[in-house]
Amino acid sequence: MMEEEVDMAVNHPPNEAHIDDEMMKMEVNLDDISSEIIGYVMDVLLKAGANDVYYTPIYMKKNRPAVLLQLLCSASKLETMKTILFRETTTLGIRYYPLTVHRMARSFRRVSTKWGDVTVKEGIMDGGVVKSSPEYEECKQIAERHQIPLQQVYEEVRTQLNRSE
Amino acid sequence: MMEEEVDMAVNHPPNEAHIDDEMMKMEVNLDDISSEIIGYVMDVLLKAGANDVYYTPIYMKKNRPAVLLQLLCSASKLETMKTILFRETTTLGIRYYPLTVHRMARSFRRVSTKWGDVTVKEGIMDGGVVKSSPEYEECKQIAERHQIPLQQVYEEVRTQLNRSE
Amino acid sequence: MMEEEVDMAVNHPPNEAHIDDEMMKMEVNLDDISSEIIGYVMDVLLKAGANDVYYTPIYMKKNRPAVLLQLLCSASKLETMKTILFRETTTLGIRYYPLTVHRMARSFRRVSTKWGDVTVKEGIMDGGVVKSSPEYEECKQIAERHQIPLQQVYEEVRTQLNRSE
Amino acid sequence: MMEEEVDMAVNHPPNEAHIDDEMMKMEVNLDDISSEIIGYVMDVLLKAGANDVYYTPIYMKKNRPAVLLQLLCSASKLETMKTILFRETTTLGIRYYPLTVHRMARSFRRVSTKWGDVTVKEGIMDGGVVKSSPEYEECKQIAERHQIPLQQVYEEVRTQLNRSE
Amino acid sequence: MMEEEVDMAVNHPPNEAHIDDEMMKMEVNLDDISSEIIGYVMDVLLKAGANDVYYTPIYMKKNRPAVLLQLLCSASKLETMKTILFRETTTLGIRYYPLTVHRMARSFRRVSTKWGDVTVKEGIMDGGVVKSSPEYEECKQIAERHQIPLQQVYEEVRTQLNRSE
Amino acid sequence: MMEEEVDMAVNHPPNEAHIDDEMMKMEVNLDDISSEIIGYVMDVLLKAGANDVYYTPIYMKKNRPAVLLQLLCSASKLETMKTILFRETTTLGIRYYPLTVHRMARSFRRVSTKWGDVTVKEGIMDGGVVKSSPEYEECKQIAERHQIPLQQVYEEVRTQLNRSE
Repeated sequence: MMEEEVDMAVNHPPNEAHIDDEMMKMEVNLDDISSEIIGYVMDVLLKAGANDVYYTPIYMKKNRPAVLLQLLCSASKLETMKTILFRETTTLGIRYYPLTVHRMARSFRRVSTKWGDVTVKEGIMDGGVVKSSPEYEECKQIAERHQIPLQQVYEEVRTQLNRSE
Repeated sequence: MMEEEVDMAVNHPPNEAHIDDEMMKMEVNLDDISSEIIGYVMDVLLKAGANDVYYTPIYMKKNRPAVLLQLLCSASKLETMKTILFRETTTLGIRYYPLTVHRMARSFRRVSTKWGDVTVKEGIMDGGVVKSSPEYEECKQIAERHQIPLQQVYEEVRTQLNRSE
Repeated sequence: MMEEEVDMAVNHPPNEAHIDDEMMKMEVNLDDISSEIIGYVMDVLLKAGANDVYYTPIYMKKNRPAVLLQLLCSASKLETMKTILFRETTTLGIRYYPLTVHRMARSFRRVSTKWGDVTVKEGIMDGGVVKSSPEYEECKQIAERHQIPLQQVYEEVRTQLNRSE
Repeated sequence: MMEEEVDMAVNHPPNEAHIDDEMMKMEVNLDDISSEIIGYVMDVLLKAGANDVYYTPIYMKKNRPAVLLQLLCSASKLETMKTILFRETTTLGIRYYPLTVHRMARSFRRVSTKWGDVTVKEGIMDGGVVKSSPEYEECKQIAERHQIPLQQVYEEVRTQLNRSE
Repeated sequence: MMEEEVDMAVNHPPNEAHIDDEMMKMEVNLDDISSEIIGYVMDVLLKAGANDVYYTPIYMKKNRPAVLLQLLCSASKLETMKTILFRETTTLGIRYYPLTVHRMARSFRRVSTKWGDVTVKEGIMDGGVVKSSPEYEECKQIAERHQIPLQQVYEEVRTQLNRSE
Repeated sequence: MMEEEVDMAVNHPPNEAHIDDEMMKMEVNLDDISSEIIGYVMDVLLKAGANDVYYTPIYMKKNRPAVLLQLLCSASKLETMKTILFRETTTLGIRYYPLTVHRMARSFRRVSTKWGDVTVKEGIMDGGVVKSSPEYEECKQIAERHQIPLQQVYEEVRTQLNRSE
């Protein structure tokens, strides 16, 4: 799931469905860098505005179990991402190509639980809510504060969500 | 191996080699859905006409071991695939880009074995057969019916194939 | 690298090399839980005293791309880990078996850099230092505070380390 | 999740929690066999009574991306599994070691939905239900028969489950 | 496939099937070392007598895509392997546990092809040959010398093998 | 790291940074071929001029743990690569699409160590050296000739490099 919307305000008017053809996929193969640094770079890229960053295990020549770093960003962020990748990783070459992203319409609502309110992100198709996803960070905080399993928090949010429909 | 031809009739005139530049690659990152549902979606997509669907293990932020769903389809199937992905998965965004596929010429023949006939798909280059692949489902049925190892069925088909050349 | 020593005091007398045969490996296959929760469980287990927790992508029946959770802990922690795994994941069965861990002797030292001191963990064999590893969290803080690449911090620590030998 | 109980009758008295130390883990590295056959072997092993079978991508010498087949079975099934592995795969050596499995107490109940009843498997700890898992095959059949997303079926089962508590 | 027999002479009397319970599995998690060095270590371990060495992609804490190194060796080689792992990798801890290996009886034969003879390793069960595997290095040399696809060499060896039976 | 420059002469004038938009990514899914052959194909492709070749573990239909072969090459090499892929693998279809590569300026220098000189490749940004990478094959030869850990060779090269700056 792309999470470009994590910092969007709740009660925001629904985001319209739209097709974004100004996106770039960037790729770097990493075989001469420690995993500690690879783990660090992910956060740097996300903070600088990447829509998504993910790692895939790959196998390169000379029996090297390596890592493919991929990221998605708007074309306007291309140079920013390049600078980070060249500074923070060992790569000497960065690949990229444009792609299109179709984003579903989405809205946010607040659901009340016995432990407080939780934001739920909803996906909308043909005017109806077809999926709803409780906000991870809020559920996590509740789980930690109340010493209950995270699954139980999600379960409770979904129960209240169904009751309110 | 792409298997868009699985339901093509045997004795079909050879498929010509051709370059298809009307293909799309679609991609979705899945990190908030159970594997049970991911396994199910593959079949739904294949039945709806995807040429190929495959999963890659990826690593996303917050220590999430997630799944990259990729599929290949003709550009004309794009909307059909989007609808399934939005309905059956948790994703709110689908990425895609065009690509070209070069397909080798292929033909099908029947090979006789002691357990019955088996279809073999052949790849043709410069007028000659350069590879041949016994049809999996038929070999599997023979293995199950006769309680013999699947490898032995493949082996026998290949032996008969060599004898007939 | 096992990191059971992360909270050990610097200037601690060297940890002796030893063979620990009171360790357990625990394993759980996860195919009906979202990656969000899997990512969360890792931290819970580490905080509760697991020596190491790691995930491996596996492929289960019915085309399910799933996750194998493995953890290492001392035998005395077995029940604690079971309780967390049963509470926080969907599993109904936990596998485990004993194993032996041979730990190299190690010591900690402080290295001065232009940005402040950094702890370095050293591995000792036959009385000599055979490897040294700058402490990740300290290097990361320097990189963030001074807006420099993390690699440059590691490099500087290693340079100072060589100079002081 | 281990699924040795898939064919257990509904309304079965709750399975007691227990520790089973008569289990075996078996392992085979596969680097000279096609994926078609690897996919087939999984079903053969499960039908013959393996508790679980799963594949892990591994990297072997000479740049070979290979597969580690692992299976869990009771010690009494060891010879049966060996025979299948030697017959159906290319391996000349099979590794195995004993392990312990702690199984949570579990019970089964039936939940009514607008599309018919669905079995739900429950995990019980300290006398209380701590997790519940709708039976996949039944949900899948409903999804296919009624042409609705599989997620919606799970959602409905969980809603009815919460209502009945 | 375990390849402890790679340097066994052709025309060797068949190796008897046997159960070896003097084997060890060793494991190391690697998250602070470059892939270049990981690829190198595999050869060092194999040359020193490991029966098998393989890498699995794993996910460790702090978003680190890391590598699990596993090796199989006879218990008598344990100290040799430890020394290499401590010298050549960054690990400060090595895990290990005993396991049993059941090895199929095997024999070697020579098969004549138009490009020269090739060794074929055979697996024997209940007195009969149940699998046969052309020796990779010999087939590779033929493919390179004669500029033909490697698959064609294997195919030819299998054809001649079937003819000679 | 892309290694198209492995055979470039040392003391070569620095390679200018440049953006190459004449590159192609090629992809093949492999599910009916042994890992032995997949490992072999990598070398054939690299020798024929591929800039990079790497394998990703994927999961295909019918529970097949398969391999995605990806390669990067200049558009002018497209037909050469196709011929190899059709000859050496079982695929009947090859996918490809253009992408852009931004290559950092790079230069090579020689560093003296107690075991002889080693080539170091440097990446240059805004006129300054931002990364340096000792040549793997040379370090490996030193490690083998002098029976020292490969890590120690890298460490020594880096120490000398820092001293000379």
